[in-house]
Amino acid sequence: MSVEVPPRRVERDELLLDYQRTRQASEAICFPLSPDDYQIQSIVETSPPKWHMGHVTWFFETFLLQAFVPDYRPFHPQFNYVFNSYYQTVGSMHPRARRGLLSRPTIEEVYAYRAAIDARMLELIASVPESQWPAVAERVTLGLNHEQQHQELLYMDIKHNLSVNPLKPAYTAQALPLVDKATPLGWLERAEDLQETGFAGDGFAFDNERPQHKSWLEAHRLADRLSANAEYLAFIKDGGYQRPELWLADGWAYINQHGWQAPLYWEQRDGEWYEFTLHGLMPLNPAAPVAHTSYYEADAFARWSGKRLPLETKLESRLLELEPEGQFTDSGIFHPQPGSGQWFGTLWEWTASPYTAYPRFKTLEGSMGEYNGKFMNNQWVLRGGACVTPREHIRPTYRNFFYPHDRWQFSGIRLAEYL
Amino acid sequence: MSVEVPPRRVERDELLLDYQRTRQASEAICFPLSPDDYQIQSIVETSPPKWHMGHVTWFFETFLLQAFVPDYRPFHPQFNYVFNSYYQTVGSMHPRARRGLLSRPTIEEVYAYRAAIDARMLELIASVPESQWPAVAERVTLGLNHEQQHQELLYMDIKHNLSVNPLKPAYTAQALPLVDKATPLGWLERAEDLQETGFAGDGFAFDNERPQHKSWLEAHRLADRLSANAEYLAFIKDGGYQRPELWLADGWAYINQHGWQAPLYWEQRDGEWYEFTLHGLMPLNPAAPVAHTSYYEADAFARWSGKRLPLETKLESRLLELEPEGQFTDSGIFHPQPGSGQWFGTLWEWTASPYTAYPRFKTLEGSMGEYNGKFMNNQWVLRGGACVTPREHIRPTYRNFFYPHDRWQFSGIRLAEYL
Amino acid sequence: MSVEVPPRRVERDELLLDYQRTRQASEAICFPLSPDDYQIQSIVETSPPKWHMGHVTWFFETFLLQAFVPDYRPFHPQFNYVFNSYYQTVGSMHPRARRGLLSRPTIEEVYAYRAAIDARMLELIASVPESQWPAVAERVTLGLNHEQQHQELLYMDIKHNLSVNPLKPAYTAQALPLVDKATPLGWLERAEDLQETGFAGDGFAFDNERPQHKSWLEAHRLADRLSANAEYLAFIKDGGYQRPELWLADGWAYINQHGWQAPLYWEQRDGEWYEFTLHGLMPLNPAAPVAHTSYYEADAFARWSGKRLPLETKLESRLLELEPEGQFTDSGIFHPQPGSGQWFGTLWEWTASPYTAYPRFKTLEGSMGEYNGKFMNNQWVLRGGACVTPREHIRPTYRNFFYPHDRWQFSGIRLAEYL
Amino acid sequence: MSVEVPPRRVERDELLLDYQRTRQASEAICFPLSPDDYQIQSIVETSPPKWHMGHVTWFFETFLLQAFVPDYRPFHPQFNYVFNSYYQTVGSMHPRARRGLLSRPTIEEVYAYRAAIDARMLELIASVPESQWPAVAERVTLGLNHEQQHQELLYMDIKHNLSVNPLKPAYTAQALPLVDKATPLGWLERAEDLQETGFAGDGFAFDNERPQHKSWLEAHRLADRLSANAEYLAFIKDGGYQRPELWLADGWAYINQHGWQAPLYWEQRDGEWYEFTLHGLMPLNPAAPVAHTSYYEADAFARWSGKRLPLETKLESRLLELEPEGQFTDSGIFHPQPGSGQWFGTLWEWTASPYTAYPRFKTLEGSMGEYNGKFMNNQWVLRGGACVTPREHIRPTYRNFFYPHDRWQFSGIRLAEYL
Ligand SMILES: [Fe+3]
Ligand SMILES: [Fe+3]
Ligand SMILES: [Fe+3]
Ligand SMILES: [Fe+3]
Repeated sequence: MSVEVPPRRVERDELLLDYQRTRQASEAICFPLSPDDYQIQSIVETSPPKWHMGHVTWFFETFLLQAFVPDYRPFHPQFNYVFNSYYQTVGSMHPRARRGLLSRPTIEEVYAYRAAIDARMLELIASVPESQWPAVAERVTLGLNHEQQHQELLYMDIKHNLSVNPLKPAYTAQALPLVDKATPLGWLERAEDLQETGFAGDGFAFDNERPQHKSWLEAHRLADRLSANAEYLAFIKDGGYQRPELWLADGWAYINQHGWQAPLYWEQRDGEWYEFTLHGLMPLNPAAPVAHTSYYEADAFARWSGKRLPLETKLESRLLELEPEGQFTDSGIFHPQPGSGQWFGTLWEWTASPYTAYPRFKTLEGSMGEYNGKFMNNQWVLRGGACVTPREHIRPTYRNFFYPHDRWQFSGIRLAEYL
Repeated sequence: MSVEVPPRRVERDELLLDYQRTRQASEAICFPLSPDDYQIQSIVETSPPKWHMGHVTWFFETFLLQAFVPDYRPFHPQFNYVFNSYYQTVGSMHPRARRGLLSRPTIEEVYAYRAAIDARMLELIASVPESQWPAVAERVTLGLNHEQQHQELLYMDIKHNLSVNPLKPAYTAQALPLVDKATPLGWLERAEDLQETGFAGDGFAFDNERPQHKSWLEAHRLADRLSANAEYLAFIKDGGYQRPELWLADGWAYINQHGWQAPLYWEQRDGEWYEFTLHGLMPLNPAAPVAHTSYYEADAFARWSGKRLPLETKLESRLLELEPEGQFTDSGIFHPQPGSGQWFGTLWEWTASPYTAYPRFKTLEGSMGEYNGKFMNNQWVLRGGACVTPREHIRPTYRNFFYPHDRWQFSGIRLAEYL
Repeated sequence: MSVEVPPRRVERDELLLDYQRTRQASEAICFPLSPDDYQIQSIVETSPPKWHMGHVTWFFETFLLQAFVPDYRPFHPQFNYVFNSYYQTVGSMHPRARRGLLSRPTIEEVYAYRAAIDARMLELIASVPESQWPAVAERVTLGLNHEQQHQELLYMDIKHNLSVNPLKPAYTAQALPLVDKATPLGWLERAEDLQETGFAGDGFAFDNERPQHKSWLEAHRLADRLSANAEYLAFIKDGGYQRPELWLADGWAYINQHGWQAPLYWEQRDGEWYEFTLHGLMPLNPAAPVAHTSYYEADAFARWSGKRLPLETKLESRLLELEPEGQFTDSGIFHPQPGSGQWFGTLWEWTASPYTAYPRFKTLEGSMGEYNGKFMNNQWVLRGGACVTPREHIRPTYRNFFYPHDRWQFSGIRLAEYL
Repeated sequence: MSVEVPPRRVERDELLLDYQRTRQASEAICFPLSPDDYQIQSIVETSPPKWHMGHVTWFFETFLLQAFVPDYRPFHPQFNYVFNSYYQTVGSMHPRARRGLLSRPTIEEVYAYRAAIDARMLELIASVPESQWPAVAERVTLGLNHEQQHQELLYMDIKHNLSVNPLKPAYTAQALPLVDKATPLGWLERAEDLQETGFAGDGFAFDNERPQHKSWLEAHRLADRLSANAEYLAFIKDGGYQRPELWLADGWAYINQHGWQAPLYWEQRDGEWYEFTLHGLMPLNPAAPVAHTSYYEADAFARWSGKRLPLETKLESRLLELEPEGQFTDSGIFHPQPGSGQWFGTLWEWTASPYTAYPRFKTLEGSMGEYNGKFMNNQWVLRGGACVTPREHIRPTYRNFFYPHDRWQFSGIRLAEYL
């Protein structure tokens, strides 16, 4: 990879363990699925769980085994076509919108594929010559971070896939805790400053978090928790979805074209609001953070509140002060819970920062250059992780990004204003 | 049902046997499927096999059990929504285009549904009071004919679902016979005549085959076999798909918009033509009938040949002279084979007759009125059955119908001309 | 043209006069238009008046001057591209949907084009050698009938173009007569019969009216006037647009997709119904015939009425008994008026006959073969002419045709039933 | 307007003259148009010249006469509907995509509207009470800047409208100068710095240029002229449009979906490249700046060149050093000419800065708040003006913005890189 990114010192044993733990975590997520669930692609943005399970495996096969094992023969001649997501440089690919039409390879074949690649990967990690070890270690680490991203996608996609079903099936039988006491909203102030932004340590970080660079930050304050359902309901009741002056022009067009009147997964039955969750259809909890709004909705809500969304630099400077504690996947609760702070975990926070390159940004070399840089257009940055993010996946400098109309990700709203 | 349709004399034992045989036949078709295959809907016209298996069961539950069993309680409160195809009069329904997104009910639940309904149906057939027997017998007969239609749809849809897969999986391991000797094309002449068209017997027939009525038939002749792949290839090589004067205006627009250059399932590899079949991808057999053309292509091919497509009345008058012998599902060969005659079975034959009502046509009463009549618009009639039709399902008066651009059905071409 | 069609005996002087009269009639229709109006194409089905005026001229240039004048040089090298409608055999053409984007040639240039072609046409008619006269006479007659068809299209298209304007401008300042007395609905009976259908005389008729042939007609009766607005309003008030059982499946899908709740040009203001007409926006006249329904609506209305739409053979057999009297363009009233009979003129009548070829139908030779035959798919026949049809253009055997969703043509409804 | 924006000291006489000069300039642009040209809307992004001429007039009527003239009665009750562009707060509006369908009001009526509003406006400027003068002066100035924006849109839209015409008509008969000597590419270096960005003077500036604020600028260099056609041709010949690794993912999808292989207005005839210009179809001048590329193409070209696009702050800091000299509309040449520098005029320069709000940005009060802020999403900033920009309209802090796929604006490419 790039010369600027010093390889993290990582031992083989440690990585072997990491590899196995991460790979098993993906399978654990799929454990509650029926064979039928593995096949669904409810919208073009989601992928069938079966495809995710194959694709993350293909990532190791393509970028590790193909690259570092002499005379490696592919597991199946067409899996490169079937499981390539968007790496134009390694060949053509099955169209994204048609992943739900792939009845073959079957679930069984995909699990056989996983097992076969895992065996070869463990062998590679254990026995690659020392000269190649740094490159392999770095690439494996990227592959594991990639797999963690797909673990979050699995939760997101499974939720959407189940939500379109008229039977409203739950992903998990685990009950949601009953926390309905609201936390009062406080504010955290900061003076203006020329600060450092971006990753500069020696652990793992994606290319888009680099290089570290200066940016000028105006004096401002940040809400000390996420905006709650009760607050968002007030926005709705105040005609929020009917008042064009609150919306970006693109957003106003979009919500009208799609008939949006509430966040994704909300539905009204007999006058009461319910929310579809991975724990089933639940009465809306007024104290819980509002989830699954698009950027358009987050921005309109902030305007209606007389506030703004924070810049990503503001959030980053706050996250740098804290330990990465919060509601992550290890909680077993896959729906955002009420609380205070909520800086890490719970829900990704929309920022007022378009997703663009940091100054002097360079993509990785070769196919890995397609990982992040080519998406720097028309998207907005989100920060901090969510309840469906693996805890060890997140960092203060982590930049997530989605289109302004996307809302199947676990996104939330934190308000901000200038001083 | 309608007073004009005298109920066929049918015994309870006979119907019990018919019921079981037909229901088992559907399950036999699905036997080679993996769980993954059950879920696929490759285009809006196809349905997932799982849905077919539920829908035909729903038909019996709705139109027999609900109608004739006192205090019947539905198997599941939402199956009427999930498995209703297009019967607006029995309630709203899951959108057709989204049947492939239904991971629930699961395959297991659908088979449990089948078993439960079958038990109740056998009970109903055995024990319904004599006064209701004629109505029940007639409705069960309709339900079995309906299920046979879906058996053919299962073959059609499975074929399409598998065809979009880059791995090109075969439905059956059974080898295709090697018959590549072409049969010379002869002609069968008929003088002009005022003939009777439509069904008038006392067995089962659909409402759209009734009532019998007079129609004037001009003198003509009919080809004594279906047009062959070799003949269609000559049309292609003569620039058939590039010559607008051979095409209906709608057809010319359609093939250009969709980039059609050959029948569905044909593909060229290294200069050789192959055809995807339920037996896998096969070299094109020049002697076999050309299959899976749209009406547009059949009509253009006929014009290029200096001939026409036959009217449905012409085909019917020929079919009435013959025993229903031919290549049907019981052959175990689900791809059209070379031969002569081919009046029944092998492939449905496009006619030059738009699908409209016969004079004095009446729809059935109640919800059954939605069965056929509401589709009498923009479609063309096909006659004679195909290799994926159950043998006992076909009659000389049987009217099948598809849109002129449809071609995933097993359709073929028989030429005709006026004398 | 075809050998089967004996040329009508027509004198040169007579044709010269016809030519001038017909060409001037087109210009008279455009007289009330502003330059702005000439340019509008409100939907893909309509064409800008400027384009119509050029296209009918191009027809004479291409099929007469190019064909019969030695060494003819085109008026402009690109007008064949610009003004060709759909004749694939004479070259490529400007896309239909983009005719409204042609600011050049300008209106002035189009009128200069008309003048230049007229001069050459009058010369050709006067001086073509006798040996070519029959062919020229026949082709000119076709060209004049073609221009009359576009005269009706001008009325249809101008009406639609003006209707989309928020200012609701009238085409003509001429007041509509106030006839609001309804005529009671009577019935005309006919016994079953083997009748002759189609054109067999020696005057002009289109290829699609030929050849004359036998068809069997069942005993039936026909309403003796068109269905009135009051009757259609009763259908609406009875929930006609909300009851799927009244509609063809394609129609039900179409009206829901497009949100149709009433015929084209109807609008409700403060609870009262109005109708946009070429005479401006007018209160709906309950006694006047309902106009601008699609086939879907006509068919649903007939079903709701407990009747059917007539077959085209039935209407033809009635029209053959009558003189072609009725409300045509020479009335100066371009909106259907109440009355009885209404067999010719007033409104085109939807029939239950798909538009298909008569037995032994042959297209004309060469490019003229594209005139009618290639549209014989997915359309329904209408009969009898309308108030925007030139009186001398109509015949009992005349077959007009539109798609079942079309309704910008002046179409009406006559009920029928079997005896 | 906003209290933060101190009104520019402007005398009534001066503004009267400005008003007349600006209004006449719009009419002068339309002088060469035929009535046909006034009506065209070739794509949804363009508007008919007639509509532009009405809309800018409506702006004065709505935001000056309605706001400041007691008891003002609108010129026409529906012009607010017809000519409102996107101001949701002043009422509903005719859909943008359907502006080309408005044959009424006619051209004559629009000019009468202009004359009537001008008379009232001159009266208002001359006689409004002194107490209201600052507010009026400021709003009129905004209206004149608005009209200048539409003057540029007129050139852009007329060019596109003419370009879709198969006759390829020229807007002006003025010959293009023959300057084909290329200027060598040099570079201008800058050290890192904390700089002030945005407008802080007391003349006119749009809300989106405010407030002035600090931003940190990394050391970099900028090309000292725009990239030339010859350079862009080298990109094309090197397979630029076929190499996904050069493109943003959205851009790669877009160019493939739309079949782009070259900038807008380029076409190849017999192997030679031509470019459609307001001076007609011209051979491509290799020395002239490449024009009408989208952001996607500019970005891919920059990546292929081993460079980047400049941030808007970098361009602004350069523009602040210079007089606004360059090729503007007063040159009478409406196509970019070769040269050096080209900082102002010639072509708008794509920047690598998404169009977002400056820190503490506030929209104007009331309806004027819709002017700029609601478009801050999914667009990229362009800087410096073009040959179709009025000279007096531009400023160093001026922020233009378009979607990344837009290319009918006069956009060009300036390369940059970090030191
Ligand atoms: Fe991935
Ligand atoms: Fe069915
Ligand atoms: Fe025509
Ligand atoms: Fe404007």
